[in-house]
Amino acid sequence: MELLKRKIETEGKLLDGGVVIVSGFLNHRMDIGLIDEIGREFYRLFESAKPTLILTVEASGIGIACMAARYFGKDVLFAKKKAGKNVAGEVYSASVKSFTKGTTFNIVVDKNYISAGDRVLIIDDFLAEGEATAGLIDLCRQAGAEVCGIGICIEKSFQPGGGKLRRAGYNLHSLAIVDRDENGQMSVRG
Amino acid sequence: MELLKRKIETEGKLLDGGVVIVSGFLNHRMDIGLIDEIGREFYRLFESAKPTLILTVEASGIGIACMAARYFGKDVLFAKKKAGKNVAGEVYSASVKSFTKGTTFNIVVDKNYISAGDRVLIIDDFLAEGEATAGLIDLCRQAGAEVCGIGICIEKSFQPGGGKLRRAGYNLHSLAIVDRDENGQMSVRG
Repeated sequence: MELLKRKIETEGKLLDGGVVIVSGFLNHRMDIGLIDEIGREFYRLFESAKPTLILTVEASGIGIACMAARYFGKDVLFAKKKAGKNVAGEVYSASVKSFTKGTTFNIVVDKNYISAGDRVLIIDDFLAEGEATAGLIDLCRQAGAEVCGIGICIEKSFQPGGGKLRRAGYNLHSLAIVDRDENGQMSVRG
Repeated sequence: MELLKRKIETEGKLLDGGVVIVSGFLNHRMDIGLIDEIGREFYRLFESAKPTLILTVEASGIGIACMAARYFGKDVLFAKKKAGKNVAGEVYSASVKSFTKGTTFNIVVDKNYISAGDRVLIIDDFLAEGEATAGLIDLCRQAGAEVCGIGICIEKSFQPGGGKLRRAGYNLHSLAIVDRDENGQMSVRG
């Protein structure tokens, strides 16, 4: 996606540890025109997969998932990182390791809000190690729901998540892919 | 807002501790048609306040803020509950006590993404004790930005947040207000 590629090239930064900084337009301050175009692009890519539910994980995925969900006319379910008092029912739970925060945590969804008949489109801002996506896939498996697509804004080619998901046969589309050369310089494939 | 009021009346639950459960349509599974209407209503209420930035806090506020931001054509900035490696710059920080989780945490925003010229519309899903909103107001104060409005989906009349903000003179609109009678029964004002 050309617009996202240009944004990453002009405003993104690659840190030494492999973290891509796009907090000025994607996952802290959100450029709402860009996010809306991202939502439209996900609709173009996954309309034919006929999702019945958009699934993401808090926090950065939620806004992107909502803007996409508007085009699909389908609900968003966001997995929570910790069940608070406002999740009252029984939950499906999966363990996830965070690359950017260096911690492991559980993600949960209320069993009432995802079911065996669902065709689930997973949407997230980043794909790096693939841990968060694997956790979301595991929640779908527990519910008996089918993962009909995985839409990612930015995939990091120098981490194994994308390769693993493609080899497993998932219908994965990344709107931008970030490469890193031997000097630690970033380039972006649209 | 009639649509939200009806949703709370038919699907919401009030727990003994005063927690209002709306996780089936607002803050876990999100009814995207409803959230879009909520965004439109916030635009109707706050268009004349001419916000330059929509501010919320992760996680439940983000989707609602994004759907509203589309109508305003303005960016969303969401405060993070903990600065990860993907927030690289200096931050403004405020302390917040969570009513639903029973914990205290810091919220932060990168100093580069809010400035003294901003007119900020704060949007959130709930107003109860008012701690999260007070934290967001504090972040605006540190940045020298002006809070031009506060838009809340559900205010709980039996907790003091709404009263405090109105007495302080803020331009506060709650789309639904939940009352609790002496038997612990909930009723909703549209």
